[in-house]
Amino acid sequence: MLNRDINLQKKIEMKLKDKIEALSRFKTDLYKKDFLLTWEKTEEELKAVLDVAQILKDMRSENISPKVFDSGLAISQFRDNSTRTRFSFASAANLLGLEIQDLDESKSQIAHGETVRETANMISFLADFIGIRDDMFLGEGNKYMREVGKALDEGFAKGVLPRRPGIVNLQSDIDHPTQSMADLLHLKNEFGSLENLKGKKIVMSWAYSPSYGKPMSVPQGIIGLMSRFGMDIELAYPEGYELIPEVVEQAKKQAVASGGSFKISHSMKEAVRDADIVYPKSWAPYHIMQKRTKLLQTNDQAGLDALEKTCLAENANHKDWEYDEEKMNLTKNGDALYMHCLPADISGISCKEGEVDGEVFEKYRIKTYLEAGYKPYIIAAMMFTQQFENPAEMLQNILKKNRKRISD
Amino acid sequence: MLNRDINLQKKIEMKLKDKIEALSRFKTDLYKKDFLLTWEKTEEELKAVLDVAQILKDMRSENISPKVFDSGLAISQFRDNSTRTRFSFASAANLLGLEIQDLDESKSQIAHGETVRETANMISFLADFIGIRDDMFLGEGNKYMREVGKALDEGFAKGVLPRRPGIVNLQSDIDHPTQSMADLLHLKNEFGSLENLKGKKIVMSWAYSPSYGKPMSVPQGIIGLMSRFGMDIELAYPEGYELIPEVVEQAKKQAVASGGSFKISHSMKEAVRDADIVYPKSWAPYHIMQKRTKLLQTNDQAGLDALEKTCLAENANHKDWEYDEEKMNLTKNGDALYMHCLPADISGISCKEGEVDGEVFEKYRIKTYLEAGYKPYIIAAMMFTQQFENPAEMLQNILKKNRKRISD
Amino acid sequence: MLNRDINLQKKIEMKLKDKIEALSRFKTDLYKKDFLLTWEKTEEELKAVLDVAQILKDMRSENISPKVFDSGLAISQFRDNSTRTRFSFASAANLLGLEIQDLDESKSQIAHGETVRETANMISFLADFIGIRDDMFLGEGNKYMREVGKALDEGFAKGVLPRRPGIVNLQSDIDHPTQSMADLLHLKNEFGSLENLKGKKIVMSWAYSPSYGKPMSVPQGIIGLMSRFGMDIELAYPEGYELIPEVVEQAKKQAVASGGSFKISHSMKEAVRDADIVYPKSWAPYHIMQKRTKLLQTNDQAGLDALEKTCLAENANHKDWEYDEEKMNLTKNGDALYMHCLPADISGISCKEGEVDGEVFEKYRIKTYLEAGYKPYIIAAMMFTQQFENPAEMLQNILKKNRKRISD
Repeated sequence: MLNRDINLQKKIEMKLKDKIEALSRFKTDLYKKDFLLTWEKTEEELKAVLDVAQILKDMRSENISPKVFDSGLAISQFRDNSTRTRFSFASAANLLGLEIQDLDESKSQIAHGETVRETANMISFLADFIGIRDDMFLGEGNKYMREVGKALDEGFAKGVLPRRPGIVNLQSDIDHPTQSMADLLHLKNEFGSLENLKGKKIVMSWAYSPSYGKPMSVPQGIIGLMSRFGMDIELAYPEGYELIPEVVEQAKKQAVASGGSFKISHSMKEAVRDADIVYPKSWAPYHIMQKRTKLLQTNDQAGLDALEKTCLAENANHKDWEYDEEKMNLTKNGDALYMHCLPADISGISCKEGEVDGEVFEKYRIKTYLEAGYKPYIIAAMMFTQQFENPAEMLQNILKKNRKRISD
Repeated sequence: MLNRDINLQKKIEMKLKDKIEALSRFKTDLYKKDFLLTWEKTEEELKAVLDVAQILKDMRSENISPKVFDSGLAISQFRDNSTRTRFSFASAANLLGLEIQDLDESKSQIAHGETVRETANMISFLADFIGIRDDMFLGEGNKYMREVGKALDEGFAKGVLPRRPGIVNLQSDIDHPTQSMADLLHLKNEFGSLENLKGKKIVMSWAYSPSYGKPMSVPQGIIGLMSRFGMDIELAYPEGYELIPEVVEQAKKQAVASGGSFKISHSMKEAVRDADIVYPKSWAPYHIMQKRTKLLQTNDQAGLDALEKTCLAENANHKDWEYDEEKMNLTKNGDALYMHCLPADISGISCKEGEVDGEVFEKYRIKTYLEAGYKPYIIAAMMFTQQFENPAEMLQNILKKNRKRISD
Repeated sequence: MLNRDINLQKKIEMKLKDKIEALSRFKTDLYKKDFLLTWEKTEEELKAVLDVAQILKDMRSENISPKVFDSGLAISQFRDNSTRTRFSFASAANLLGLEIQDLDESKSQIAHGETVRETANMISFLADFIGIRDDMFLGEGNKYMREVGKALDEGFAKGVLPRRPGIVNLQSDIDHPTQSMADLLHLKNEFGSLENLKGKKIVMSWAYSPSYGKPMSVPQGIIGLMSRFGMDIELAYPEGYELIPEVVEQAKKQAVASGGSFKISHSMKEAVRDADIVYPKSWAPYHIMQKRTKLLQTNDQAGLDALEKTCLAENANHKDWEYDEEKMNLTKNGDALYMHCLPADISGISCKEGEVDGEVFEKYRIKTYLEAGYKPYIIAAMMFTQQFENPAEMLQNILKKNRKRISD
């Protein structure tokens, strides 16, 4: 190795050491706790997860393998379609040394009335983590995750399971913490620090979409998390497109407590004025989701069809809720950071009329990819901090071992 | 590490060493032999598999990784739905270092007429084990496994395959050895030793279920295995619900040879009297399975529907074959160990009327979870003993290496 | 270890060292280049891939593990059914230390209009390789792979991806390089060396099949590759069953340049005379594939049904294009090497009348299995040479480390 390379490597190592040192100062209680809702975690805990994610990302870039499991399963249970979250979870698990096993309910006997309690134990004899995505039914996803958690608690307490597998919420009806935390890490890197986010205006806005029934967990996750860091949050939607009231209440309280502000308004155009960050994204309103859940539960197809028709008609009244060039020009320097969890409904590209204008999206397209790229590391960090009581110490060990991800 | 911890670790190591020492005394011929039917194995061989399973389980509890494969595939082929067996196989393979690949026939060209012989070779170029579940057709599952075995023999002999992958029967039409061996390990631990099982009364009883067509491999596996260890076996079912005659004959012979007994009776209530262990579980009778197989083979849907109707009507005559509190009270001290392969048809919980009363099941629920928890280790032990000529020596090596499953 | 064993091991090591030494002399530019078409690679590059494949195969036989990745994903995307290619890709990835993740489009949001560009990046944050099989639409498969490649280029250039994942063509509309290269390695071993293939006559012949719409990528791959090594190639098919003209042109030019010859003829019986190697395999003709692609794209089911009917009727005029004993007897010593990518349509076995007579196939059956057995190593070699700038040096390192695949 050349001297130059040795020096470079030492510099990187020093930088990683500094980050780990900073991490070690946080007081956290993440160990052996499921990660279900960001607002159940302290700010220090959220910061610790961000830091671990960034360190794992840096390590991988430097060809250092943070494999801490020699074997073990990470089980994913998706009750909704997913490409990016599925691959993010698989990537995170693989990075740490766990093998992914999908619990595919259509393949399994769960479809035949097996209880949640039993299944949770049956799949977990050698499992370390369970990632669950369950966002289809209002009032169900979060409840289901906690039910699984209780079953695992019992299994561990009674000696059925050698350890209590940790749960990672990969999207529930209430929150989407792997998305919002990835978004926050993106913001931290775009603006330089969490400190720099204070006083920044972020607009979480409803946007028009030709489809219907999109979950509320992304906007709820965004307002529920960004309100922790002193930002000025504006939640904009057409009258009637409310989110779950309790989550909005929570976000309001948090915004004030963190030295920021929280405002609800009903015009995308007005809302984005002077915004530093915009997040235009469609969702189905709370009262519709309530009706929809009941119809789904009673399997009322005629009712569902009628509801969809009404909703699409109502949506169509708000086609001006597209994030276009005119609106972009109203934002801070005409260049607010555009965010999206992807895939976006892009006018003229993925649909005729949608959430965002094609040219505007193109301007920020790569940024949205970068945004998404944090998710695998956020998930890995959620696992890592659940696994190790002292994550900083373990990261230090990994750095010392310097195990190569790819042989060289 | 504290002195206390060092002492504890030494104790555990000593205990594991003792178990490995005991294992090393068995004379076995498990090396490079498929595991298809328990009655093809000697008692020493069965004991060796139980011991290896227990040692692997203890090692994992102590964070010792018994990974012996650096790479390699374990292929699972499920011709029937399965959650628990699928995850057990995946867990076992992963524990030893193999990656699972599902041979999903609906996805593959097998559905288009490819021969068994060819497919067996095509998937096995880098495979170490194939786990097969094929329990739907009477006279087919076991036959299919042997056909695959022969194809692999040929492939290895002719230089197509670098090694002969081992086969593990994950449930056939005849036997379900991973289930029955897990059940036996559970009994060994519940009663303290295999020796203690001598003279114990175990009742394998048919039970009512609102569904139809359940395979006979579980009851056959139970009587075929438990009859090896000097237990008093009572097989109870309503007249007409016979199992495969050859398997029952085999169990009878074995029971006598091992110093136990074997009895067939036709009342659950009478059978469970003074039982130490009860295993109430529904199955479809032999003569029905014969008819059903023919109808399935000729794709006679009308015939199948008619048969199902007749069977369900016949089943409904035996709703009193539910394991309830009254029957439980008749067992030894009113507390016979209740067993089930899960999922059970639980009256008032998973169905209106079923195999077992809800409160009775709840009393033994955790025990059935513990019972199921042995299966991954039984499967791993079946692989391990097929792989290594001297499993005790290899386990000793693993202990010496002390590779951690989770970094610490 | 006995002295004899030590000597044997040393011999094997010496032999492997010699092979690696030979490999190190090739000048190649495979590093960081996708493997899409064999005719984009130089002869030295093709030879290097063959050598790496053989060395990896030998290493595994000697229980040496060439695991070079400590973690990482190999993503497979199959837009057509597949058993053998799927398992070959999984085996190759696993051998090198990568975990397979299927991108199943029916499960993912891709089905809902997500763009190729975005998905390619979203799945690749921690991916090392993407294997794509897309052979259904003429003019699409190869195009799609290059589109994915460009998206990955952009993602890497813009910092979205920490590395540019390599692409392996697992079958496109134009070429099937993992198949043809496995076939070539088989020929090399059957005839002793690539040098020995010079002047050998290989007949790539259309053959009758009761099915319709089989891709042209296998015959195209064969003539596109075998024409590089001085063989006399005869492409035989009934009038009208043309392949893509550009590929045939390419093969012709190559045959001449390499000192061989290229001929098209229209009688299997005449073509196989004095052949050293025969490859009788059905395909759908170019002009039909053109029509079919249009009908598929416009979702014209009636048109497709009509086309199928016409084609099957046309096929039926050529049932004499079966490779039977009579034709076999016309080949060199009545014993030309029979090749097939499998599964073959075998008369009297997998169909009534097909590509090859049952007894003739049986004579060469094991050879076709051996042929298929090279594919996992060819795929691994394609990954290995894309990954390491100096594959010989890395193989030397692996040999020196002598990491065991199975603990001993």
